[in-house]
Amino acid sequence: MTSPSFKHLLGLDGVSREVIVRILDTADEFAKVLDRSIPKVPTLRGVTVANIFFEASTRTRVSFELAEKRLSADVVNFAVSGSSVSKGETLLDTVRNIEAMRIDIVVMRHYASGAPHFLKDRIKSKVVNAGDGQHEHPTQALLDMMTMRRHFGRVEGLKVVILGDITHSRVARSNLYGLKTMGAEVLLCGPSTLIPYDVQSLGVNVTTSLDEALKWCDAVNVLRLQLERQKQGYLPSLREYQTQFGLTRKRLEKADKPIMVLHPGPMNRGVEIDSDVADAPGSTILQQVTFGVAVRMAVLALIAGKEEVVE
Amino acid sequence: MTSPSFKHLLGLDGVSREVIVRILDTADEFAKVLDRSIPKVPTLRGVTVANIFFEASTRTRVSFELAEKRLSADVVNFAVSGSSVSKGETLLDTVRNIEAMRIDIVVMRHYASGAPHFLKDRIKSKVVNAGDGQHEHPTQALLDMMTMRRHFGRVEGLKVVILGDITHSRVARSNLYGLKTMGAEVLLCGPSTLIPYDVQSLGVNVTTSLDEALKWCDAVNVLRLQLERQKQGYLPSLREYQTQFGLTRKRLEKADKPIMVLHPGPMNRGVEIDSDVADAPGSTILQQVTFGVAVRMAVLALIAGKEEVVE
Amino acid sequence: MTSPSFKHLLGLDGVSREVIVRILDTADEFAKVLDRSIPKVPTLRGVTVANIFFEASTRTRVSFELAEKRLSADVVNFAVSGSSVSKGETLLDTVRNIEAMRIDIVVMRHYASGAPHFLKDRIKSKVVNAGDGQHEHPTQALLDMMTMRRHFGRVEGLKVVILGDITHSRVARSNLYGLKTMGAEVLLCGPSTLIPYDVQSLGVNVTTSLDEALKWCDAVNVLRLQLERQKQGYLPSLREYQTQFGLTRKRLEKADKPIMVLHPGPMNRGVEIDSDVADAPGSTILQQVTFGVAVRMAVLALIAGKEEVVE
Repeated sequence: MTSPSFKHLLGLDGVSREVIVRILDTADEFAKVLDRSIPKVPTLRGVTVANIFFEASTRTRVSFELAEKRLSADVVNFAVSGSSVSKGETLLDTVRNIEAMRIDIVVMRHYASGAPHFLKDRIKSKVVNAGDGQHEHPTQALLDMMTMRRHFGRVEGLKVVILGDITHSRVARSNLYGLKTMGAEVLLCGPSTLIPYDVQSLGVNVTTSLDEALKWCDAVNVLRLQLERQKQGYLPSLREYQTQFGLTRKRLEKADKPIMVLHPGPMNRGVEIDSDVADAPGSTILQQVTFGVAVRMAVLALIAGKEEVVE
Repeated sequence: MTSPSFKHLLGLDGVSREVIVRILDTADEFAKVLDRSIPKVPTLRGVTVANIFFEASTRTRVSFELAEKRLSADVVNFAVSGSSVSKGETLLDTVRNIEAMRIDIVVMRHYASGAPHFLKDRIKSKVVNAGDGQHEHPTQALLDMMTMRRHFGRVEGLKVVILGDITHSRVARSNLYGLKTMGAEVLLCGPSTLIPYDVQSLGVNVTTSLDEALKWCDAVNVLRLQLERQKQGYLPSLREYQTQFGLTRKRLEKADKPIMVLHPGPMNRGVEIDSDVADAPGSTILQQVTFGVAVRMAVLALIAGKEEVVE
Repeated sequence: MTSPSFKHLLGLDGVSREVIVRILDTADEFAKVLDRSIPKVPTLRGVTVANIFFEASTRTRVSFELAEKRLSADVVNFAVSGSSVSKGETLLDTVRNIEAMRIDIVVMRHYASGAPHFLKDRIKSKVVNAGDGQHEHPTQALLDMMTMRRHFGRVEGLKVVILGDITHSRVARSNLYGLKTMGAEVLLCGPSTLIPYDVQSLGVNVTTSLDEALKWCDAVNVLRLQLERQKQGYLPSLREYQTQFGLTRKRLEKADKPIMVLHPGPMNRGVEIDSDVADAPGSTILQQVTFGVAVRMAVLALIAGKEEVVE
C-alpha cells in the first residue's frame, strides 16, 4: 500500500487533502495514546529532533517537546539567545551545523517568513515549520482542523470565520490554505486595515461585520491581536477594536445558534475575546492545546517515515 | 493499609506530622537509591513533570530536574523569559495550557506569594511549590528537617534557631511551620527590622542576641541575606549585620558545644556566614543539597500516588 | 590489560600521546555508532552529566548534549543567566552544589582561563573543559586531529598551519599542544599583533605571510576572528585583515596542491574565510562537526571509566 508521505512540513499551501487527512487520522490515533495511563510510544526511538526557536515561544515549543518525548525521540533544545546566532552566524551555517551533528528532524520557529523554505533544499535533515514570520504555522492549523473535525465529524462544508488581524497572522494563512483544501468555506472578518487587499483571489469572502459573520458560520477562529498594532497605526484604539471585533457572549447569543470558538492562544482576555466566552462550559480552546500534542506527534511520526506510526 | 496521601505540596502550613514523617521516611529510602551505582528507579515512568520557573533559580531547578529524571519521569522545562508570559498572558492561562498538554505534575516557582494556591483549585495537574514570593518553600524545609533528623535521629524536641531576615524568607516560614508540627522548639534571631512583629503568635520566641541563641540551640539555620535589604533601609550596613548576626567560628566556639549549621544557599560568604564555618569538617551544608534530591524524589513519588515508591 | 585512563580533561597540555591516540581510536568506533540507524549505546546509563555554561555557546553545548544522550546519560543543562551566579555565589560554591547532587561529570565552559583547573582538585565530579577563557578547548583540538587523521591516515609528520588570532584563541592553544604531542609540525600565521611574542619557545615557527604558510602546509586551521579585535586596536581594519589573512580560493590555488581546510566555527564568511572555500566540494568543515560528537562521546566514555566503551 502506498500512503501519502512527505519529507518536510513547511506550510499547508500546496499540501494535498490526502496528506492532511492522513495527518488528522494519525493524530486521532495518537490522541488515544495520550489517554493511556502511560502516554508513550517507541515510534521515534533513536531519532533525534532539535527544536530551534529563533523567536520566543512557550506553548508551541513545549507542545513539540512533549510530542517528541512521547514518541521516545531524543530531543535537544536550542533558543536563539545564548547561541552563536548572536555571533553573526548565518541561518544556513547554524542549521548546517545542527545537521552535521546527525539531527534527523529540525523543528524551527523563525521570525523571517520563508526561513524554513530557504533551508529545505539545503540540508538533509527534515524540517518542520513551527511558525515563520507572518507566513505559515501549519501545525496550528492542523490542530484547529483536528478540533473541528472531532467536533463536527468533518471539515468539508464547514463554514469557518477567521476573525481579527489577518494580514500579520501566520495562523490565519495556514488555516485558510488547509480549510480550502479540505473543502470548508472561509470568511475573513476584521478591520479593513488588517485584511490583505488581494485576499479574495484566494477564494474567500471578507466582511467587516462580526454579527453578519457569526450569523453565517459554524465555527469562529479568533486570532490573537498583537497589541503593538495600535501604536503602528492599524487601529484607532484597543477599545474600538474590542467594541467592533471582540468576541463577547452577547454577540454570540445574538447569532442564536451554537458556534464553535477557537483561539490559538495566548489570549488577550477582554480584547479579542471575553473571559465568559473563553471559559464557557463548551469551550474547545483547551482541547485545541491537547490535540496540538497529538497533531505534532502525527506530523513527526509521518515525517520520520514510520509507516506504522501508532504502536 | 491506608497511608497519608496528598495531591499538592503548596507549603508546610497545615501539613500533618504524619505526612511529613511519611515524606522523610520515603526520602531516607531514596537517599539509599542515590548511593547505588545506577541511582535510578522507574517509579514515575510515563509521568510528565513540567518545571515552570517564573523566577531565576539554579539549585532548586536542577535539584527537582534530577529528582524527576532519577524517577524516570518525562521532564519539560519552561522559564519565564522567552515565554508567552511576556506576551501578557495570565498565570492561569499559562498553566491551564500546560495542563491541557496532559502534564501530570507542575513544579512551580513564582515571585508572587500564593501563586500555587491560586492554581491548585483551578487545574487538574498536581502542583508542587518550589518557592512562592516571601511565602513558603516547603521542599527546602523538608530537606532541612531530613538533614537534622539524620544527624540527631529525631526532630522532636530539637532546639532550632532560624537566623537572619525572617520577614522576607520563605525558607524561614516553611521551616517554622514544619518544625513546630514536628515538635521542635524554634527561636528566631535577627535584627528587629527583619522579624515580623506578630510572629510570637505562632508560638516561637524571638531574640536579637545571637550569642544567647547559640547557647540555647542544637542547630542553627542561617538564612541568606538579600544584599538589597540595606538599600531598602532595613539595615544600617552589611558590616554591622555581619558583626551582630554573621555566623563566625569564634561565635560558635563561645557556645562551647556542638551546633549543627544549616544554610539553604547560595551563601554570601563573609556576610551571614564565614567560610571557616561553611567549610568546617563537620559542615552539613552540602549534605542538605544531597538530601534535597532525595526529598524531592519522595514528594514527587508520593504526590503521583505511587504507593510503593521505592523499587 | 592496562589502558591509559584519565579522570578529567582540562586541556591537551601535558596529555600523553598514548591518551590522545586512545581517544581518537575510541572516537573512530563511535563514529561508526553514529552511522547506525539507531545511533545510541547504553555506555553511560545511570551516569549523570551536567553541562554548565558560563558563556554563550550553541555548537559546543549541543554537541556535548548529543554525545551524552547518545551514550544514554542523564543530562541536566544549566546556563549562567538565570542562575545563582548572578546572586554573587562563588564558582566553587556553584559547582560544589552541583557535585553534592551526585553529578558524575561536569562539562564546563567558563570565561575565565583556568576555571576548570581551579575546580578539579576541589570536587569529586569529573571535569571536562568545554573551553576556558583564552586558555584551552581540548575537545575542539581533538576533533580537529580526528578529522585530519581520518583524512591523511595519520597526524604524525603533518604540516599544519594555524591561521589568525593566535593570542586570544583557546582553539589555537589546544591544537598546538595536541599537534606537537602527536608529532605534527606547526606553523602559526597571523598579524604580529595577534601572535604571542614568546610562542617560539613552544617549538613552533611563526610567519606573517599566508602565501608562504600555504606553500608549506598539508592543512590549515582557520581561526574565527573576533570582530571586536579591531576596536581593541589589534587590527587596522577588517578589510586589511581579510586582504592579508583571509583564506580565499585564489590563495589556495596559488599553493598549487591539495590543502585541507579546517574551521572551528562559527565562521565570519568574507572575513577570515571565503564562502567558496568553506563550501568547496572537498571541504571538511562540516565533517569536523560530525566528528565532534564522536570525540565527545569518546572523552565522556573514557572519563567515566567504561573500559568497553563501544557496545
